[in-house]
Amino acid sequence: MSFRIEKDTMGEVQVPADKYWGAQTERSRNNFKIGPAASMPKEIIEGFAYLKKAAAYANHELGVLPVEKRDAIAAVCDEILAGKLDDQFPLVIWQTGSGTQSNMNVNEVVANRAQVLAGGKIGEGEPVLKANDDVNKSQSSNDTFPTGMHIAAYKAVAEVTIPGVEKLRDTLKRKSEEFMHVVKIGRTHLMDATPLTLGQEISGYVAQLNHGLKALKNTLSHLSELALGGTAVGTGLNTPQGYDVVVAKYIADFTGHPFVTAENKFEALAAHDAIVETHGALKQLAVALNKIANDIRMLASGPRSGIGEILIPENEPGSSIMPGKVNPTQCEALTMVAAQVMGNDVAITIGGTQGHYELNVFKPVMAANFLQSARLIGDACVSFDEHCAQGIEPNHARIKELVDNSLMLVTALNTKIGYYKAAEIAQTAHKNNSTLKETAIALGYVTAEQFDEWVKPEDMVGSLK
Amino acid sequence: MSFRIEKDTMGEVQVPADKYWGAQTERSRNNFKIGPAASMPKEIIEGFAYLKKAAAYANHELGVLPVEKRDAIAAVCDEILAGKLDDQFPLVIWQTGSGTQSNMNVNEVVANRAQVLAGGKIGEGEPVLKANDDVNKSQSSNDTFPTGMHIAAYKAVAEVTIPGVEKLRDTLKRKSEEFMHVVKIGRTHLMDATPLTLGQEISGYVAQLNHGLKALKNTLSHLSELALGGTAVGTGLNTPQGYDVVVAKYIADFTGHPFVTAENKFEALAAHDAIVETHGALKQLAVALNKIANDIRMLASGPRSGIGEILIPENEPGSSIMPGKVNPTQCEALTMVAAQVMGNDVAITIGGTQGHYELNVFKPVMAANFLQSARLIGDACVSFDEHCAQGIEPNHARIKELVDNSLMLVTALNTKIGYYKAAEIAQTAHKNNSTLKETAIALGYVTAEQFDEWVKPEDMVGSLK
Amino acid sequence: MSFRIEKDTMGEVQVPADKYWGAQTERSRNNFKIGPAASMPKEIIEGFAYLKKAAAYANHELGVLPVEKRDAIAAVCDEILAGKLDDQFPLVIWQTGSGTQSNMNVNEVVANRAQVLAGGKIGEGEPVLKANDDVNKSQSSNDTFPTGMHIAAYKAVAEVTIPGVEKLRDTLKRKSEEFMHVVKIGRTHLMDATPLTLGQEISGYVAQLNHGLKALKNTLSHLSELALGGTAVGTGLNTPQGYDVVVAKYIADFTGHPFVTAENKFEALAAHDAIVETHGALKQLAVALNKIANDIRMLASGPRSGIGEILIPENEPGSSIMPGKVNPTQCEALTMVAAQVMGNDVAITIGGTQGHYELNVFKPVMAANFLQSARLIGDACVSFDEHCAQGIEPNHARIKELVDNSLMLVTALNTKIGYYKAAEIAQTAHKNNSTLKETAIALGYVTAEQFDEWVKPEDMVGSLK
Amino acid sequence: MSFRIEKDTMGEVQVPADKYWGAQTERSRNNFKIGPAASMPKEIIEGFAYLKKAAAYANHELGVLPVEKRDAIAAVCDEILAGKLDDQFPLVIWQTGSGTQSNMNVNEVVANRAQVLAGGKIGEGEPVLKANDDVNKSQSSNDTFPTGMHIAAYKAVAEVTIPGVEKLRDTLKRKSEEFMHVVKIGRTHLMDATPLTLGQEISGYVAQLNHGLKALKNTLSHLSELALGGTAVGTGLNTPQGYDVVVAKYIADFTGHPFVTAENKFEALAAHDAIVETHGALKQLAVALNKIANDIRMLASGPRSGIGEILIPENEPGSSIMPGKVNPTQCEALTMVAAQVMGNDVAITIGGTQGHYELNVFKPVMAANFLQSARLIGDACVSFDEHCAQGIEPNHARIKELVDNSLMLVTALNTKIGYYKAAEIAQTAHKNNSTLKETAIALGYVTAEQFDEWVKPEDMVGSLK
Repeated sequence: MSFRIEKDTMGEVQVPADKYWGAQTERSRNNFKIGPAASMPKEIIEGFAYLKKAAAYANHELGVLPVEKRDAIAAVCDEILAGKLDDQFPLVIWQTGSGTQSNMNVNEVVANRAQVLAGGKIGEGEPVLKANDDVNKSQSSNDTFPTGMHIAAYKAVAEVTIPGVEKLRDTLKRKSEEFMHVVKIGRTHLMDATPLTLGQEISGYVAQLNHGLKALKNTLSHLSELALGGTAVGTGLNTPQGYDVVVAKYIADFTGHPFVTAENKFEALAAHDAIVETHGALKQLAVALNKIANDIRMLASGPRSGIGEILIPENEPGSSIMPGKVNPTQCEALTMVAAQVMGNDVAITIGGTQGHYELNVFKPVMAANFLQSARLIGDACVSFDEHCAQGIEPNHARIKELVDNSLMLVTALNTKIGYYKAAEIAQTAHKNNSTLKETAIALGYVTAEQFDEWVKPEDMVGSLK
Repeated sequence: MSFRIEKDTMGEVQVPADKYWGAQTERSRNNFKIGPAASMPKEIIEGFAYLKKAAAYANHELGVLPVEKRDAIAAVCDEILAGKLDDQFPLVIWQTGSGTQSNMNVNEVVANRAQVLAGGKIGEGEPVLKANDDVNKSQSSNDTFPTGMHIAAYKAVAEVTIPGVEKLRDTLKRKSEEFMHVVKIGRTHLMDATPLTLGQEISGYVAQLNHGLKALKNTLSHLSELALGGTAVGTGLNTPQGYDVVVAKYIADFTGHPFVTAENKFEALAAHDAIVETHGALKQLAVALNKIANDIRMLASGPRSGIGEILIPENEPGSSIMPGKVNPTQCEALTMVAAQVMGNDVAITIGGTQGHYELNVFKPVMAANFLQSARLIGDACVSFDEHCAQGIEPNHARIKELVDNSLMLVTALNTKIGYYKAAEIAQTAHKNNSTLKETAIALGYVTAEQFDEWVKPEDMVGSLK
Repeated sequence: MSFRIEKDTMGEVQVPADKYWGAQTERSRNNFKIGPAASMPKEIIEGFAYLKKAAAYANHELGVLPVEKRDAIAAVCDEILAGKLDDQFPLVIWQTGSGTQSNMNVNEVVANRAQVLAGGKIGEGEPVLKANDDVNKSQSSNDTFPTGMHIAAYKAVAEVTIPGVEKLRDTLKRKSEEFMHVVKIGRTHLMDATPLTLGQEISGYVAQLNHGLKALKNTLSHLSELALGGTAVGTGLNTPQGYDVVVAKYIADFTGHPFVTAENKFEALAAHDAIVETHGALKQLAVALNKIANDIRMLASGPRSGIGEILIPENEPGSSIMPGKVNPTQCEALTMVAAQVMGNDVAITIGGTQGHYELNVFKPVMAANFLQSARLIGDACVSFDEHCAQGIEPNHARIKELVDNSLMLVTALNTKIGYYKAAEIAQTAHKNNSTLKETAIALGYVTAEQFDEWVKPEDMVGSLK
Repeated sequence: MSFRIEKDTMGEVQVPADKYWGAQTERSRNNFKIGPAASMPKEIIEGFAYLKKAAAYANHELGVLPVEKRDAIAAVCDEILAGKLDDQFPLVIWQTGSGTQSNMNVNEVVANRAQVLAGGKIGEGEPVLKANDDVNKSQSSNDTFPTGMHIAAYKAVAEVTIPGVEKLRDTLKRKSEEFMHVVKIGRTHLMDATPLTLGQEISGYVAQLNHGLKALKNTLSHLSELALGGTAVGTGLNTPQGYDVVVAKYIADFTGHPFVTAENKFEALAAHDAIVETHGALKQLAVALNKIANDIRMLASGPRSGIGEILIPENEPGSSIMPGKVNPTQCEALTMVAAQVMGNDVAITIGGTQGHYELNVFKPVMAANFLQSARLIGDACVSFDEHCAQGIEPNHARIKELVDNSLMLVTALNTKIGYYKAAEIAQTAHKNNSTLKETAIALGYVTAEQFDEWVKPEDMVGSLK
């Protein structure tokens, strides 16, 4: 491998000749060999590309950066966004907690790549751009990294999580309407209870997802606040007047999302409660999805020794040893995602508590966990939707068999003969393994005609909307 | 001890003669000797008192309960709310996950106490009220317990948490304004950084609490939804037409909070995402409060070997062995509360995932953790406010000493002489233990006049609002 | 209410006249009105009683405390241990993170109660004992509180948790042996799988509890290490030579548990990894118990529309609205306890990370969560054992029906005709709702005789020990 | 891209022609597009390679697999272990919770690669090996995946985590001995306390790591138990007599670690408490490392406005805006790793609770989180050791300045003049900003000679080993 020499304020460093990064990136690469290389999420790098470009535009608009430098910066940022420089960001999550070296990684790549795009050679001649003085102008790691986090987090939630959850929600809503008149036994405490319809049961899932989506959207306003313009400690040192508002506007324009400058920059550097807040809503969705997926696999269990009230798609052979076995694999993937998101929430919570003075230095771990959760929920909902939810069908025969047999239909008699006599009927039928009707008559509490009139599963499910 | 005999559908049970509870309460008391007695939160019992009274009013209004029964129920509920029957609720959190026996505890106490209030004797003569058929009319444990949870949770958040946090927020806001011009050194990575003012620093705390309060209030609409009217599985079996809306209105009237009937009763029984959602916001506040309290104790550390930039009240002798020691004890209490709330969040999250079919059976553990968090945050903020925050004062001499000495004032030179030369000045001054000014001049990068003009801490803190 | 005046190094304080506590307790009571009063666990106070008595004995043995002071201290400590002074400890968990005021609460109560026992009046005449100089001799809050924690934690684990878990383990072991030949269908992914016996299934639970108990016992050696003798920062300042070893020996004698002095006192004050370690094992038990309780409620589900392979005791009416309903309430209590323990683990983990320099100041919150977990697990296992596990019985008819019907018996044919043909048989039988045997013969892969010889559920369960 | 047709029991599937995997892998790849591709940890694939080879040897030894099939399987497994087939395992964590398709992925790759190694073409002619009948012989996903997990987990802990932690522990032990006589101020509650030596302070870290290592090693016996031989549900169906013991012995031989067959196979499939147990110890280490790293960065804070008692290596420029800034970046990486491990613990705990009947279906998520933690801790300790701990040096001048100034030296007077007079001295000195000595003399409690004799920091640190 061939190398070139790069310099920073600490001295010289050897850098692979075919890479655009500079001394600080290389130092970090060598100093932090923790976990797999290049683990810093690509979404963060993209967030940086948006903000570096926006900063260049704002700096130019406010008179502190010439147009040719602005355009040189923007050109490389566009290459990053197009995925052309993916192999130029080798750093890991487990570096400095401010993400400083990832900020410098971007600064260095932009400066050196610009040199090449301008026909120059890295490190030779007058530099087109200086990493610290031009690319990083009016910026600090301390305000760029949280800005990159918010851009990446907002985009992931808006572009991956929400559409994925909504897609699943829409399918479940359709299923709920379709099965609204399929009367089945209810279960509470896992035990037989009074009937409801399959559509009603599924409508509860839809309500959970709707509430989860609402909760998630409620958090987006905090997440839309950007730290950029706070620079080192939140005071905005070394930024031109009005810069914070202008740069946020450019970021909003470039990304198509309604970003604004943070009202309080001290909070925006020292605390990441917005990440905690939105991830709290992701966790709520994980809770909801876990409930839904778990119910569906229990309802589909069997085929002969389980509940078996619904059928779900058979997607792959389920066992390497048991021939013909089919499993609720999408439910399993989704509940595993839920467990991960709940764990990530704790990592993020702990990271969130650890701001010290003017800076929270758990930024990369918070960002990485957040982005994983946002993507996993979105992806898993789409997968679950396409390979499971869309194919849910009632097993009508089984549903009817179970509801007809249920002892809990006796509840309809409460208002006719009182709770105590109704209980006696149910307990006697249970003990004698007899039907409710024959027991009720034998005990002399109702006539056959009364029983048939009063105990109708389809009348016990309330109004069906 | 003397006993009387009570009966339920399973048979006879001996109950202490001086207690109003009945057979089912006694069974639960004997079957669940787990942890301290009577651990079911009193707030839940109060929630039940509100809802039983409201149900009686709604049942009467809708023609299924005579006025004298309504009033008999209401009279006992009022006694419960007045705290007169506190020793009648002996059950624990760790019972059935639907809280059925706590519902029956209330039903039994209301029925038996009404008998006595009417001049009768428990278990003798015609009962004034029947526990299941009258007190529990149009209800099930499955919809009453979550209703009681929401009433208790909403009240705790609105009446304890929010006022407590706001009180602390107001004090910090006042302090922020008062100290807005006290220029001090900033710190990032715990290391010296560019200056800001003490007021700016505290304004970040205020912003955190404001965002936390907003997040908390965002969740209240979900929490205001009541399950009541869903009865056993969400279908509303055995309730009169329109009951759910009417009963919610009565609860709103009686509590003074804007409760409404849940749009989807299946969700309201089977999932407690509203509890997960609101507690997520409580956890966010815990994260914020942890940051604030931790910063304050670091800023106040010393008196001679710490940071010592602020002074906090000396409330009690700090050590049983070190004479004269004073400690940031309010900070410690508050951060311990934060740790508890973060742990409670996991218990609630796990409980929230475990709805099965038509019922979540982790209701009591979710309720107990929620109510503890809501109260602890509220109480701890008041305590912290009164015994710490209100007494925060700057240690002006120490603040000035530190800011004058700081090497990071060099950052003001970036835009004048560039990042690299500025770095050389700082590094040289650090190595030689000299001042920035003498080093800058010695290196020939600035004149004394330029230095004095360019490097002014008070000019480095941005605009002060 | 009448008051007396107490003094400490900060001045005078009014204290209720009928209480033994002094100025520092009263200050703490007034300064920390957070959550319910007197929430500091009684087990911690008992731990203090043991250690104060042991310190008095050690101080006397090493020549720094006269015998009459030793005995005066010991007499009050014995009263505390006998529960006679329970109303003298009003402080809360949410105080200083070192528990200093709870240490002083004990010191003050011992000193003042000794005055009264000696026939004197509090605050009058020559004090029999001085709180700081005698009762607290050779001690600091910083080494007493962690010592009290370890005593309380060790006792709770050894006297409540382990016996409770072992009791349940023994019952399950007996059940496993009793049902070792009851062949039933297995289930993986909640779906029908190859058979096993009910005894084998339960043997897995026994193995989980045995591994959990072993893991728990592995941690006890760390927990048996006592901080006492470290005093303020771990150096043992103001203690006589050899004190740490002697005092630990007295504590071991008084408690009957094998306590030893901590090898490294700096760790013992600044970190509570022993609490983290043992609670990690409690959490593992919670995981195991959750699995067991959840399986049992699923196996017992029904009575007519669930799995119904086992019967569990019917302990109380299960529903206030559904007559005759019986629920797996002990399973619910146990799984709620599991959720609580998992949440407590996070609170303890967070507390454990927060040692700063020479002292961890999350001691009370760590202690309280630990003690709750230890007791809840022990109590809940006993409750579950007595009210559920001991009564588990197979539903033989149901078990036989399900195993005979199972398609997964086809797995026995893998080694005879290969996985692919076996799969074809199972899939065809599933599609046609026919039996395996008729399908296997119809497809021409086996004869009736071969089928009967090869497919025997009782031969598919391996060796039964 | 060109394709070939592969078949499984569900029918035909198109597979990329240049890949060795078959139908089931391809189905899973298409059905689970969740998160980045190929996220199933490589360590798991390696674990499979070990166990498939061992199974082939055991099957041969027990007479159910010809030697040429054994060798064909072993040859491909060796290629996998050599990293030659890394691009053949495209599946994700978020698949079926039993990892069935990853087991089949290995089975398919082994079978097809063996065909090619034998000079054949995939899918043509007599297959050298059949994926299900030969490569998977005497196995099920249900016992192979947990076996692969345990192999991977054990190896990661033994080969990465423990050596990493021990390396750091050894450095800290050396530093502790080296600085054993450097007397410095102690701090409790972040406030000045009695002195200790820097070596004593660091010895506490060493004790934490030693206890953590011991706790970790205590768990390895459970982790060394292998599920293999349990097959589908734990009964060992379709395995030759004695297979479980023999196959574990081969795995022990091939890996060099002391693996044994699990005593209870039902537990080994249905629960993963061993993973929970060992990760609990990893979490304890994370807690300890967090404490250590946090202390070190606080001790090193400054350079001029912090504590500044120790110096740590300056590894990279610390700020993109503040010239000359150096930060405790290794501490930040290590504490971020700690936060991640604590989050992972919750994901693993939740996964661990979710065994249902005969199978836990959260295997992949538990494995992935475990392996991340094990590696991150090991790597981060090495990084922290090399780039921080080895370079720790005392700042002697600063240490002396602080200890000389401390008011808490007054504690040495407790045993001479009593706690109350000592407190008066400290409080007066604090108020007057005077020295202890001049105050003590002015108050008339000691002479200058007494003070000098009694108050010697170096005599207050106890015995130095």
